[in-house]
Parts: sequence; structure tokens; C-alpha cells
Amino acid sequence: MDIKNILEDDKFAQFNGIELVKIDKGCCELKMKIQKHHLNGANTLHGGAIFTLADVAFAVASNSYGDLALGVNANIDYFKAIDSGEIVAKARELNRSRKLATYAVDIFHNENLISTFSGTVYIKTIG
Amino acid sequence: MDIKNILEDDKFAQFNGIELVKIDKGCCELKMKIQKHHLNGANTLHGGAIFTLADVAFAVASNSYGDLALGVNANIDYFKAIDSGEIVAKARELNRSRKLATYAVDIFHNENLISTFSGTVYIKTIG
Amino acid sequence: MDIKNILEDDKFAQFNGIELVKIDKGCCELKMKIQKHHLNGANTLHGGAIFTLADVAFAVASNSYGDLALGVNANIDYFKAIDSGEIVAKARELNRSRKLATYAVDIFHNENLISTFSGTVYIKTIG
Amino acid sequence: MDIKNILEDDKFAQFNGIELVKIDKGCCELKMKIQKHHLNGANTLHGGAIFTLADVAFAVASNSYGDLALGVNANIDYFKAIDSGEIVAKARELNRSRKLATYAVDIFHNENLISTFSGTVYIKTIG
Repeated sequence: MDIKNILEDDKFAQFNGIELVKIDKGCCELKMKIQKHHLNGANTLHGGAIFTLADVAFAVASNSYGDLALGVNANIDYFKAIDSGEIVAKARELNRSRKLATYAVDIFHNENLISTFSGTVYIKTIG
Repeated sequence: MDIKNILEDDKFAQFNGIELVKIDKGCCELKMKIQKHHLNGANTLHGGAIFTLADVAFAVASNSYGDLALGVNANIDYFKAIDSGEIVAKARELNRSRKLATYAVDIFHNENLISTFSGTVYIKTIG
Repeated sequence: MDIKNILEDDKFAQFNGIELVKIDKGCCELKMKIQKHHLNGANTLHGGAIFTLADVAFAVASNSYGDLALGVNANIDYFKAIDSGEIVAKARELNRSRKLATYAVDIFHNENLISTFSGTVYIKTIG
Repeated sequence: MDIKNILEDDKFAQFNGIELVKIDKGCCELKMKIQKHHLNGANTLHGGAIFTLADVAFAVASNSYGDLALGVNANIDYFKAIDSGEIVAKARELNRSRKLATYAVDIFHNENLISTFSGTVYIKTIG
């Protein structure tokens, strides 16, 4: 089975300027250049923008097998406020059973860990 | 003390078309019209877009007192996939102590609960 | 279909002195008297003991329909340290679909909200 | 500064038979032998018992510096039901700033990852 990459069909990922760095089954690395429209009222990178990058990495990793994986829930911790440059998200699989799978995503800015995310999907077998 | 509304200074909220419905101390209601660029690869509303609306409601509610409230962490549960119309987020305060506060946000589509969010802030006293 | 109460078969609930107050489909109320062995190193009620009461309420509520509901994940926020008396947990259903369901549990001490919990189950249909 | 071990003063940890394997600043390893009273209504290890082991590891790691660290919130994912033997929790520091710190705890059974936990503390400086 080939690795499926859902990033190019993801309109919200495109809207936010998210790009693929690499992908393999159950894991991927994405990046996003911080732009003015990604900032919050305190002029730092918005929690929703950090979450969105992590959530897209979670979706790309969890859908890489071909079956449809639907997000059930997620949580995120923020460690450091930043305001420029590029952020990188690295997703890895913690567990994958027949119907459920869980992924961890680490988010870096200049190689510093600025946030951690984890999310669970429900797997709908196709065909 | 006046109620402070940080929505107009929030660039990412503006970028996503988020609008204020009402605000009071510790709570608020926001809405967002679903547009094509808010969709994911399965053509349903993106988890990152739902989270962003909830996260902005959390920021508006937690910063309504005047002090600067910084997001520490958050989690979100998704109940139903939708693809058009408008979503509404209602934020309320669960607890506020001197340095920490926690908020719950319910997200509705046509009055159906489609997602729940909770988030915690660290409060930096100003002046 | 009758309401199923799994509390009496729950060894860890019995070990912790957890008692049923009331139960209905998808919701329940439980209580636990704080004893010395429930305390942590700071002599306040242990996070694990608060979580356990909430988790049992979540299990009782999610299994009240008869089908087997298995815990997928949970999260908890703590608002106030306490050291004596009784705590009460009230569980309610946020969403229940065919295979997944999510519950919120509020934990009270003398009618003050001291903690909030939410958890998701995977439903295994029986027979 | 010496490493502070709060495990021996933790009554709930003792009640549950939790033992120290090793400890260093910001990290630790603990174990717990599964006993009948740790089981749930389905005769598998109770979510509250798994959480308790993880939560104690989180408390031991976050309090190892000497300052008092108070739990703010935590979340847990469950991957596999087990019913006998021993479980091991390994806690590590994800981030520690002046007032907040976040820890990840992995829980193993026979070297298989059965659960992941993360938790955040608020640090009260002493003296």
C-alpha cells in the first residue's frame, strides 16, 4: 500500500501556508512560516495557529495508511510565546489498533520545543 | 473596571472571519461563517478551524478583566462533522484564582452541540 | 432496557469507599468520604483519588445502557485543594453516537466546584 | 540542592502499593504490582489505578527540585486492557519555567506502552 498524503486536499492547511517536509506511515513532519495574520492580540503566534499546524500533522500521519481516520479529540500544551520565523511539527504514532489510534506531535521553533499535542482518531475502514 | 475586548486586535481571529455576538466578564459568545478555506481533505469543517473559534472565545473571556491571561493548555472533543452554515462558540468561566483560570467553551451548529473545549490560562498582573 | 449499575462489581471503587447517590441512563451521582489514605505528601486530597471518583462516575454513566463502554481517554482540571469531608461527582452525557460517547463530570466539596473531568469511551456492542 | 522524594509521605501512593524504582531531577520511574482491588467491573486494571500511578510519578518528578509543585491539570490515553503482573511509569520533564512545568509519563506492562499521561503543575516558591 502506498503512503497517502492528504495535505494537498486540505483547504485549511493551504489557507495557513502549511507545507510538507517529510511523510512515512504513521508519521510526518510539516512546517509553517509565521505571518502577521497568524498573530493574536498580544502580537505573538496564536494558539489556534499552533494547534492548526499540529492538527494537520496529526491528520496527515493518521491518514497515511489509506483508511479514513476521523479526529475524536486532542489536547495541546503551550510552553513559549514566539512571534516570527518558522515552526515545525513532528507527528509520531503512539498506538494504532483496529478502530482507534493516538498520535503525539511536538512543535519546534529554532529547535526549541514550544508546544506538545496529542490526538486520537476513529478509523473507518474503506471498501 | 470596563470589560476588555481583545477580539479586534486578534489578527488570526480576523483572518478566520470570527465575529463577536456578546461579551461580559468571564464569558462571551462568538460566531464564524464556514467558508471553503475552513474545510479539510474530507470536505468537512477542519478541526483546526473549530479549535480556533473556541480558542478565540477562551482568549476573549479570560482577558475580559483587564489583566493579561496567557494560554497554558487546552483540549477539545469533536462530536459531529459539518460542512456549511455558521458555528457559534459560548465560553464560560469554570474557575478563576489569582494566577490561574479555567474556561469551558461549547460549540454549536444550528443549536446542536458539535464540540466541547476547555482551556487554562496563567494570569500576569499588569502594573 | 433496565439501567445497568456496574458500581458493585468495581473492585477499585469499593477499595476507595465510593458510594452511589443516584443513577439514570447516561448520568449518575457518586460520593466518597475523604480518609487519611486518600491524602498526598502535602496532606491534601490526592489528584489520583479525585480522578478515581470522577472516572468511576464516568464508567457508571457510560455503561448504564447495557453495552460495554471502554475508556479511551480522559482529562481533569483541579481548582482547589481540600483535606477532609466528602466529595461528590456528577456525571452527564455530552454526546453518544454508535461507537463513541463523551461524558463530563463535575466534582464538588460542600457544593463548591473543586474539579472538572471529561472522558470518552468506545462502545462494544454485545450479542 | 538534593533531590527531594515525596513518595514516602504520599499516603495514597502507599495505599496503592506504589514503589520507587529510580529518581533524578525532573524525572523518575515507579512501579505497581496489580492486585485484585485495582480491578474494575470488567476485571481489568482500573483507569483510576493507572492514572494514580502516572499521577504519583508526575508528582515525584515535578517536586524533585525542592519547591512545592501543585497539580493544575492532566490527561491520559489508554491503549490496552491488562489484568495482572506489574506496571511501570516513567516520568520526564517536557518544560519547566519559573511558575509552570509540564511532564509526560509513559506507562508500560511487560515493556509494552499501555497508556500515556501528561500533566502541568504550578510552582510555589518556598522561603
